Order: sequence, then structure tokens, then C-alpha cells
Amino acid sequence: MPALPEIAGLRLATCAAGIKYRNRDDVMLAELAPGSVVAGVFTRSATRSAPVLDCEAKLAVGADLEAGAAILVNAGNANAFTGSAGSGTVEAVTEALSACLSVPVSRIFTASTGVIGEPLPHAKIIDRLAELKHGLHADGLRAGAHAIMTTDTYAKAATATAQIGGTKVTVAGIAKGSGMIAPDMATMLVYVFTDAAITQPALQTLVARLNARSFNAITVDGDTSTSDSLICAATGAADHATITDPDSPEGAAFADALGAVFHDLAQQVVRDGEGATKLIEVEVTGAASDEDAWAVARSIANSPLVKTAAAGEDPNWGRIVMAVGKSGAQADRDRLTIRFGDILVAEAGWVAASYTEEDGAAYMRREEITIHTDLGLGSGAATMWTCDFTKRYIEINADYRS
Amino acid sequence: MPALPEIAGLRLATCAAGIKYRNRDDVMLAELAPGSVVAGVFTRSATRSAPVLDCEAKLAVGADLEAGAAILVNAGNANAFTGSAGSGTVEAVTEALSACLSVPVSRIFTASTGVIGEPLPHAKIIDRLAELKHGLHADGLRAGAHAIMTTDTYAKAATATAQIGGTKVTVAGIAKGSGMIAPDMATMLVYVFTDAAITQPALQTLVARLNARSFNAITVDGDTSTSDSLICAATGAADHATITDPDSPEGAAFADALGAVFHDLAQQVVRDGEGATKLIEVEVTGAASDEDAWAVARSIANSPLVKTAAAGEDPNWGRIVMAVGKSGAQADRDRLTIRFGDILVAEAGWVAASYTEEDGAAYMRREEITIHTDLGLGSGAATMWTCDFTKRYIEINADYRS
Repeated sequence: MPALPEIAGLRLATCAAGIKYRNRDDVMLAELAPGSVVAGVFTRSATRSAPVLDCEAKLAVGADLEAGAAILVNAGNANAFTGSAGSGTVEAVTEALSACLSVPVSRIFTASTGVIGEPLPHAKIIDRLAELKHGLHADGLRAGAHAIMTTDTYAKAATATAQIGGTKVTVAGIAKGSGMIAPDMATMLVYVFTDAAITQPALQTLVARLNARSFNAITVDGDTSTSDSLICAATGAADHATITDPDSPEGAAFADALGAVFHDLAQQVVRDGEGATKLIEVEVTGAASDEDAWAVARSIANSPLVKTAAAGEDPNWGRIVMAVGKSGAQADRDRLTIRFGDILVAEAGWVAASYTEEDGAAYMRREEITIHTDLGLGSGAATMWTCDFTKRYIEINADYRS
Repeated sequence: MPALPEIAGLRLATCAAGIKYRNRDDVMLAELAPGSVVAGVFTRSATRSAPVLDCEAKLAVGADLEAGAAILVNAGNANAFTGSAGSGTVEAVTEALSACLSVPVSRIFTASTGVIGEPLPHAKIIDRLAELKHGLHADGLRAGAHAIMTTDTYAKAATATAQIGGTKVTVAGIAKGSGMIAPDMATMLVYVFTDAAITQPALQTLVARLNARSFNAITVDGDTSTSDSLICAATGAADHATITDPDSPEGAAFADALGAVFHDLAQQVVRDGEGATKLIEVEVTGAASDEDAWAVARSIANSPLVKTAAAGEDPNWGRIVMAVGKSGAQADRDRLTIRFGDILVAEAGWVAASYTEEDGAAYMRREEITIHTDLGLGSGAATMWTCDFTKRYIEINADYRS
């Protein structure tokens, strides 16, 4: 994990509430100074968890920025598929935190990750709120990255800076989880903080735009959590003119830093995909449309046969052809070009004359693989990242009862 | 395998052409008497193999039924993604067989299954055509079922009969392959024969309708072959009035027998899914539409997390909720009802009061599992069949190079 900077206007604290884990912090509180704006994107699942529905509702309405804001996250229990009890829990926790921090409930955002279908013992969290409040300090991101972990094998964080009107702006983020991971322990959570001054609509636009090319462009098993959440908060503590237009030079400079943090965190999530031994970049070009390019990229990145071939270091380009064919995108077998890295594998509907199985096999032994597919039809393009599909994935997820 | 009846008007032969395998038959020839009608459905892949494209083109035009027909299938090489050479091979083989059997090229249907991207050594097949012709006999279905196998662990066949206008009609079929199976050895091939008298349009209508609820309702890994083919031939040798309306009483009686054979063969294909230890029926009801029901069924049946849970005999209903949520279908978390067999697992958005983990775990130890999901929204329904996802699947497909 990189050294994490402090973000003016942000304070964090963590504690061990014993929701599921023993001897580790499992709750993170982030407090945002008055004037902070909050943006977010969430899982598209139709069975979204209570905390996700609560966050979406709060982001949908205008807020009194002078009130400040807070983010409370627990690991060990997802508070998902717990019926009416789920929203009751969110209410209880946010009201208690509101009283504790003097921040309105409408500005308190929560997330829960862990077991599905079991009521969250929220008293265990509420009992620790005063302790968390007193523990708030500026240098808490690293501890936060650890407190929100479930089956992650390492804590994930990234940081970047930008110059806006001669002022240095800092972006720092943490993340956990690689999509649907080990049994019942679903969820990707991402929290990104910055001292940039930017309006909420401009921040929301950038978050949605950059999310599409980072967290929405990664897949481990194609399965989707009921709780995936990305929240980005800007405290506005940096001394520069407030960014109102995401496409202004200042907005673009900030977007570069924010996008770098999103990209870095997304890559870390894929690398930590359970059982993963390789990071696979799936690059699609020449599609009839961007939509088609994304469909082909998803089809390749989620194909068990492509991912098991990668695990076996097998340059099995026939499975790429298969995945293109089943994607639903417009494709012409005889216009396909497939490359492994710089190695031309197949073109004009057949294996390339220059290609040798030895070259392909040598390339597949790398830890980072790029599979490039050009459909030869148009200018549609997309890039996704996935991991290989190993026996370890089955071991983790099959949870053999012997 | 059941005892297979002879079908009047059908003769088969097999031989060992040595395309890839040694010491086993790898080519099947089926000869259909004059008057036979042929119908078929094929992979929807955009990268369909040359034989598939050839069959589709021939079925799209009216045919001189008095000319008879023939089907030639080889295992070991898929003749897929072989560029222009692919269609040249189909031409060479069908022209040679046409001369050998005195059947027009337009009535010769071929299929190839096996390695993708390597030219099919068609001379090896052409050299054996005369031998195949002389070997044609009425009792060849069993040998045919074996000759078309690739990585199948057993040969697949099914039969049924119907009474049409007081006349007994027989249906018998063979199949190979479970969708995309072991490395490069893609493809499901199905050949169903009957002595029923039925017009080609009526047969095509029934084949497409029954295929949707059998072969299109099974999945092993969600991957799609470039060569999947189902061909159904009716010789018309049975002595009854020709069926012209698939929805007439005679058409319905025939459809029952044909559907039974399709269903039986489809189940055998799933049971033979590589590494499979369980047959899982995914039943979806109460969806807002049939389209939504199919989307939910596909999402559950293809979810690696649902399939690994089954492998681990883990009653992990949270993953069913996840799969419903990501399906894209209309869903209301708090209206979901989930059953494992007759066991009520979850209702009204929460685990059922009567449910115990012990009951669920005991049920999941069965070899045949039914996962029933009711969305509580409408009357849309769908049923699919899948298998569990085991370490053996990875072993077979990762093809470890050590």
C-alpha cells in the first residue's frame, strides 16, 4: 500500500465491534467537514441492500453542505436480504450517529459487507460510536482500508495529485472486495476522498464517467454484489476556484487524478480476485459500435473457458473466437484479428502464418496478459480487466463440507 | 444407452478415418431414403463454422424430396475458424459424397466437431466414403452415437414412440457434447430420426419449438460452440396421413414423442457436463414476463457462485438472491420466494422462519437438485437445467502445462 496523505477536512476512525471477526477492526467512520460534497455510484442489482437504497435516496436530494457529512462502514454482515429489518437497522445506526456527531441523518452514508440474510447486530456498532468519535484523526485512511476488508488478501489504497489553478489538490482512496467473492462475503466498496473544491453535480458527473472505465470495467466471475458502493467526497479545503464544469481545464486536471485513483484501485481489486494468478486485459477494437465492443469484452472477460485457459497458460485463441461469437455483437469471422500482447495470433479468419504455439505459450506464462481482439468492422472500442479462473476459486467458493 | 430401434428409411455407417483419434470410429454417415424431409436448428454464434453455414443455407431453400438426403459427421476436427479453407473442405466432402451416393450436394448435410483453427484433413474422409456406403445398414444408431463423441464420457441416445392415426411412429436420436467442453473440443451435435410422415415446414416448426425448451434450456458454462447443430429427419415411411399442421391432434401426438427424445438427450448432455456431479433444475415462476423468467433462469444457471455452492453442497440461497438481482429482470427483493425442492428457504425478502441450515444442507447432498425461485410479480415462467461447477471442470479446461 502506498503512503497515504491526509486530506484536509477528512478525519477517520476505526474500531473492533466484533460483528463477525475477532481481534480486528471491522467498523470505519469517516467524518467530512462542513462544505464537503458527496457523490456516488452503486450496484445495479435489483436486490440492492438496505444501506445502498438509503445512500441512493440521500444522494438524490439536495443537501445542506454546511452540515458536514459522515460515512460509516462495517464488515462481517451485509445487512442484505434481511427484509424490513434491514432498513430499520440503517435508521437506528444513522440516527444514533447523527446524535453523536451532530450531523443530520440525511448526510450520513452507510455500507455493510459480509454475510447475507442475517440481521446486522447494530447495537454492537451503536455502542462504539462515542469511541469512534473520539478516535477521529486526520491520518486514518490506512486503518480504514484494513477495517473494511472481508476476504481480501491485502488492503487496497491509491493516491494521486493534481495542480488546479496553481494549487495542489490531493486524491486518496481505499477499496475492498473483488465483486462477488468468497461464500456470502459479497461486495466491492470504494471510498475516495479529495480536498478539491467542486460542485456536487460536477463531481457526480466525473464519478459516473470514470467509474464506467474502471470499476465497471472489471470482472472476476461476472457475478454482482447486492451492496457494491462507490462514494467520493470532496471537502473543498483546497484553495482554488470551485470547479463547476467537469469539462473545463480545471475539471479535466482533477479528472485525471481522480481517474488514476479509480483505475489503480480497480486493478488492485481484480488482482485480488479469489484464486487469481494473472491479470488479464481484454482489449476490443474495430467493433461496429462501442456497445458491441463492450459486449465482446464482457463475453471474453467472463468466459469460464477463456479464464481457465489463462489459468492453464494455454494460448487457446479458439476460445476467443467462441466468446466473440456468443457475445451478440456484430462480427465477421473472416475479419477477426486476435493478438496476445504484440503477438499476431489470428487474422482473416484463420491462424496467422507467423504464429507459433511456442510464442503463444511463452506469452501466456506472464503474470499480466493482454488479449486484443479487433473485429475489423468499425471504430467501437472497449477495455476490461479480469483474472484467470483457477482451482483455488472453486476451493474458496465451493466451501466443501467434508 | 437404451436399445435403439431401426427407423424405416434410415441407414447408417461409421468408420475410423483417423482424423485425430486412434483405434475408434470418428465418422458417421446417415443415408435418408427418397421422400425424407430434413429440419434443423443451429448455433446462434456470429462465428459459425463452415459446415453450419452450409447446412443453414441448404435448409433455407426448397428441396427435391425424391432425391433422398445424407448426413456426414466427423469428430476430431471442427473445421471452424479455418478461413476460406473451411468452406472449400465442405464443398470437397459434399461433392465427393454426392457422387458416391448419387444424392445431390444440396441434400447433403455435414458437421464437424473437434479442434478449432486447424484445417480438416478432408482427404482422410473422402478416402473412406465408398467403404462407408457399403457399410450402410439399418441398425447403426448405436455405433453412430459413439462415432460422434469427443470428450463425452458416455454415448447419448434416446427413443420414443407415438400413435398417429392408429399407426405406430418411432423417434430415435443421438447426441454428443455438453456445450463448450474440454479444450478446443467444442460442440453439441444432435441427430434425431423418425419414420413419421410430416411436411418439412411442420417439422421445422416443431423442432424449433421443442428445441427452445430442451437444448436451448441447458447450460454447462454459458459458453457457446461455433458448431452446435441439431438436425431432425423424417423419412415418412410410417403409413399414416402426412402431418401438415403441427398443432393438429396428430401433430401434437408426434410432438410429444419428439419432445420426449429432445428432453432426454438434453438432460444427458447436462449430466455429462465436464466435472459435473449434480443435475440442477432451475425453475423460475412469478416473473413479470416469460422473457424476465428466462433472464433470471439464465442468470442462476450460469452463475459460477451458484454452481460452486452446489458443488460444495452449500445451501447458499444468498447467491440465488444475487443472481436474481443481476439478471436485469424486474424483481422486488421483498417478494422473492426461494425453495430448494419442497423446502421453503426464503420468503418476503428474508429467510423463512421454518427453514433450517440442516434441512438445506441435507437437500443439497442429493444428486438432483431443484432450485425454485418465485418473483411474486406475474405469470412469467421458465425452467433450465445446469450442472455444478467443480475443481474437475478447471482441471479439464485449464489444461495445465507442467
